[in-house]
Amino acid sequence: MNPDLRKEREAATFNTELLTHILDGGSERTRRRREIESLVIGDPDFCHEDANFLSRSERYEAAVKKSALMIMKMREYGISDPEEIYYYKCIASGSHPEAIGLHFAMFLPTLKSLCTPAQMDKWLPLALSFQVIGTYAQTEMGHGTHIRALETTATFDPATQEFVLNSPTVSSIKWWPGGLGKTSNHAIVLAQLYTQGQYHGLHAFIVPIRAMGTHEPLPGVVVGDIGPKFGFDEIDNGFLKLENVRIPRENMLMKYAKVEPDGRYIKPPSDKLTYGTMVFIRSMIVGESAKAISKACIIAIRYSAVRRQSELRPGEPEPQILDYQTQQFKLLPLLATAYAFHFVGQYMRQTYHRITGDINLGDFSELPELHALSAGLKAFTTWVASAGIEVCRMSCGGHGYSHCSSLPSIYVNFTPTCTYEGENTVMMLQTARYLLKSYTQASAGQKVSGMVSYLNEMSQQRLQPQQVSARNSTVNLKDLSSLVEAYKIRASRLVELAAKSLQTELQLMKTKEDAWNHCSIDLVRASDVSIAL
Amino acid sequence: MNPDLRKEREAATFNTELLTHILDGGSERTRRRREIESLVIGDPDFCHEDANFLSRSERYEAAVKKSALMIMKMREYGISDPEEIYYYKCIASGSHPEAIGLHFAMFLPTLKSLCTPAQMDKWLPLALSFQVIGTYAQTEMGHGTHIRALETTATFDPATQEFVLNSPTVSSIKWWPGGLGKTSNHAIVLAQLYTQGQYHGLHAFIVPIRAMGTHEPLPGVVVGDIGPKFGFDEIDNGFLKLENVRIPRENMLMKYAKVEPDGRYIKPPSDKLTYGTMVFIRSMIVGESAKAISKACIIAIRYSAVRRQSELRPGEPEPQILDYQTQQFKLLPLLATAYAFHFVGQYMRQTYHRITGDINLGDFSELPELHALSAGLKAFTTWVASAGIEVCRMSCGGHGYSHCSSLPSIYVNFTPTCTYEGENTVMMLQTARYLLKSYTQASAGQKVSGMVSYLNEMSQQRLQPQQVSARNSTVNLKDLSSLVEAYKIRASRLVELAAKSLQTELQLMKTKEDAWNHCSIDLVRASDVSIAL
Repeated sequence: MNPDLRKEREAATFNTELLTHILDGGSERTRRRREIESLVIGDPDFCHEDANFLSRSERYEAAVKKSALMIMKMREYGISDPEEIYYYKCIASGSHPEAIGLHFAMFLPTLKSLCTPAQMDKWLPLALSFQVIGTYAQTEMGHGTHIRALETTATFDPATQEFVLNSPTVSSIKWWPGGLGKTSNHAIVLAQLYTQGQYHGLHAFIVPIRAMGTHEPLPGVVVGDIGPKFGFDEIDNGFLKLENVRIPRENMLMKYAKVEPDGRYIKPPSDKLTYGTMVFIRSMIVGESAKAISKACIIAIRYSAVRRQSELRPGEPEPQILDYQTQQFKLLPLLATAYAFHFVGQYMRQTYHRITGDINLGDFSELPELHALSAGLKAFTTWVASAGIEVCRMSCGGHGYSHCSSLPSIYVNFTPTCTYEGENTVMMLQTARYLLKSYTQASAGQKVSGMVSYLNEMSQQRLQPQQVSARNSTVNLKDLSSLVEAYKIRASRLVELAAKSLQTELQLMKTKEDAWNHCSIDLVRASDVSIAL
Repeated sequence: MNPDLRKEREAATFNTELLTHILDGGSERTRRRREIESLVIGDPDFCHEDANFLSRSERYEAAVKKSALMIMKMREYGISDPEEIYYYKCIASGSHPEAIGLHFAMFLPTLKSLCTPAQMDKWLPLALSFQVIGTYAQTEMGHGTHIRALETTATFDPATQEFVLNSPTVSSIKWWPGGLGKTSNHAIVLAQLYTQGQYHGLHAFIVPIRAMGTHEPLPGVVVGDIGPKFGFDEIDNGFLKLENVRIPRENMLMKYAKVEPDGRYIKPPSDKLTYGTMVFIRSMIVGESAKAISKACIIAIRYSAVRRQSELRPGEPEPQILDYQTQQFKLLPLLATAYAFHFVGQYMRQTYHRITGDINLGDFSELPELHALSAGLKAFTTWVASAGIEVCRMSCGGHGYSHCSSLPSIYVNFTPTCTYEGENTVMMLQTARYLLKSYTQASAGQKVSGMVSYLNEMSQQRLQPQQVSARNSTVNLKDLSSLVEAYKIRASRLVELAAKSLQTELQLMKTKEDAWNHCSIDLVRASDVSIAL
């Protein structure tokens, strides 16, 4: 080992193995993670050419091959627990996305959350045996954020018991879904439902897009790759145009909303349930932010320990660049962020599972909080991690630009999280809507809970001049409870500021929508600090 | 034209043609720029395959071909004025770097600034006719920032009247020079000079690296490509190991420093003159920051005008996303920055030419200011522009990730300016050194000039409690002179803070180097605001 690295490691003032167990969630899980990782590290099938030297097509082929290899090997090793699959894939994929990632991350979860038992019996075995490889087609060329404006239609034809799917315009072509360009033979298509001449909003349909035997596009399906992108070279993000494509009635995912054989429409208990997969992905992205910023920090901090440059004291050998205050100022706060995001990622995952558990039991009371929390945390952590990776990269001098450092790949493959599954600014504004609603409740004396419970303390917090003089004039910055209190005060102040700014605008503006737009900077700021809390 | 774009353009409240003339520096230059640009736009030789679909090797080949085409066509058209060459190349190269960019940007300028008249007579015609294609080899694998620690040696052998060049270690291998990997047949090598057994510091030497006829590496030269990078796919950044490579005495660039035939060393009037090319490039990068952020703003703002999404008012058509306050908040300050950087880039270029003009007449008095100003402005503008490009990219939603938007290329090909020709944090600390020296002078009542002249006003500025109450409690934010005054006060306060923090540390620390390191965050902050002023 590099002597500088050994010296730094030996100087640790805490038990690093113990910390590893805490991060993994117990010593047994650390042991099992390492065991699984060693299966990849020691496997000659995973020692292949450096992807950075391959063309985009070659990278796609290598990634598909790797996806197939991973599936076969995990079967061979009997790895089937989701956490263990995650360990295996993380180490095998490195900083590159998985070719059929969307099959696992969106297609399967959507089946699981929106299928009826009969649908589950039909589709799940096909998807789990990879006869069906699926993607999730929601975004269109002209519509990402505003899902009500998506143009793809699914019209029920009771005569044939089929839905007829159409992309009526250029802007309605599905655009971006990963794995759509070449890999998938099925897509979950989000389309505006029409039945009995009535419009019923966006619903999810399973649409076969390529023939199972030949992988040729089916009649009426125009499908292909959307071309090269910033990162995601391995992934065939694609487009999909549907021209009178007919699918059986049973291909609408009917766990909640239903269309009966006669065309009668049955409403779901909540409109938001259709987008459950988005909420799932957003919740998982929080943990991915932790992973991405951790990797970047590890690389940059190790490099800073082994790189020696310039002089701190004349005549002495060049110091490790980690000894420069400016380098520490760049990297150490990001390291702290990586730890914080790790635990907030765990919290978000647990919260997701707890609330979706309640939803499955018919209790939808916490769904709005789950939406607000996952949207805001997704936006906050991805922005911070994305900018942080670039700080790490640039802290490695020229070598941070070389693909050898992995830092360019980590950045380009992580930064899309700021946009996909909900554009970050839009996410922050969704969270702001929840905050303002909670603020109104708390102001009226109602008790609010969960992520906004700090708003209950608003009335006590409101500082008065006499209170200021009575308070300690200094706060101990090492005292965590003082810091948390400071964050709470800051968050409730900014929520209050945004609420008041909205009230002022409402008196000036014609509509509440204009007023909302005119204070959206205040609103984003309020979400930002509330989520940071 | 897109109707939304036309509507926006027609709504301009100023004469856009007049503004264009101001940016170009006069209507005649606008006319000539457009004339030259039309030569490229209408040229079928420049309508080729989209580089984003090519492999790295193919992109390199296409870029070399384009460089050769540009040279031949500019000769044919009689374009020889540097500004006109710049117009032509900018439009032909787009957001991609030029294959033999370093030949023009560093090899030729170094020849011009460091050759004796006899050397100029020999090398300039060869370089201008592209028989000699050159690069600039300074950075080594182990040494970028700290040039005193560069390890490549040039030892004078009076017996043969030659310098013997050596890369004694792995870390001494030249690493990064653009065009070194495949394209160049000569390199200006920065090496530590030894003559008559004495060490004389870093000097520049012309080293033939490949045979003129065969382009094969010469004996003792180990040279190649360093592999794929973040951006710069067109460029063969290379490595160079020199093993007892002998070059004639006349290949040392001897305008200032000299080695006589007997080995006697003659000192240059200033050590800094060796790095003149670095200062030149840093000065030019300021204008490149303006160009990069301008391009990104143009793309993002046009997209925001034509992209319609979501709803501001129920029932109305989707609004242009430019109408959202959050979108304006992202893009409009960056647009203002683009204009500011355009003019600061002009100022830096003029200052560079004025001061180097004085240097050529033997007046070195403003050299320290030129160093401090170019270092600080290079760091400040590249950081702001680099982060700003990413804001522009992310403001285009998903489409900002597609290479069709050009935004990914603009970013990856611009962000290296934060590191090359002087790492930004190091640059800021160099500027801080000048600021603190100027502060000491100004505090002692000496009058300082140029970029630090605001320090002369320190004593009047120092606010006293009674003065505060006498001042207007509000400042008109639209009044430019109030804003400039506010910036001046901020800058001198932070320089003072850094100076005092340094004094405090000096009392606590063993050495002034440790003290400097311990307040380098304050120092960088002082430079940052001073440069912003």
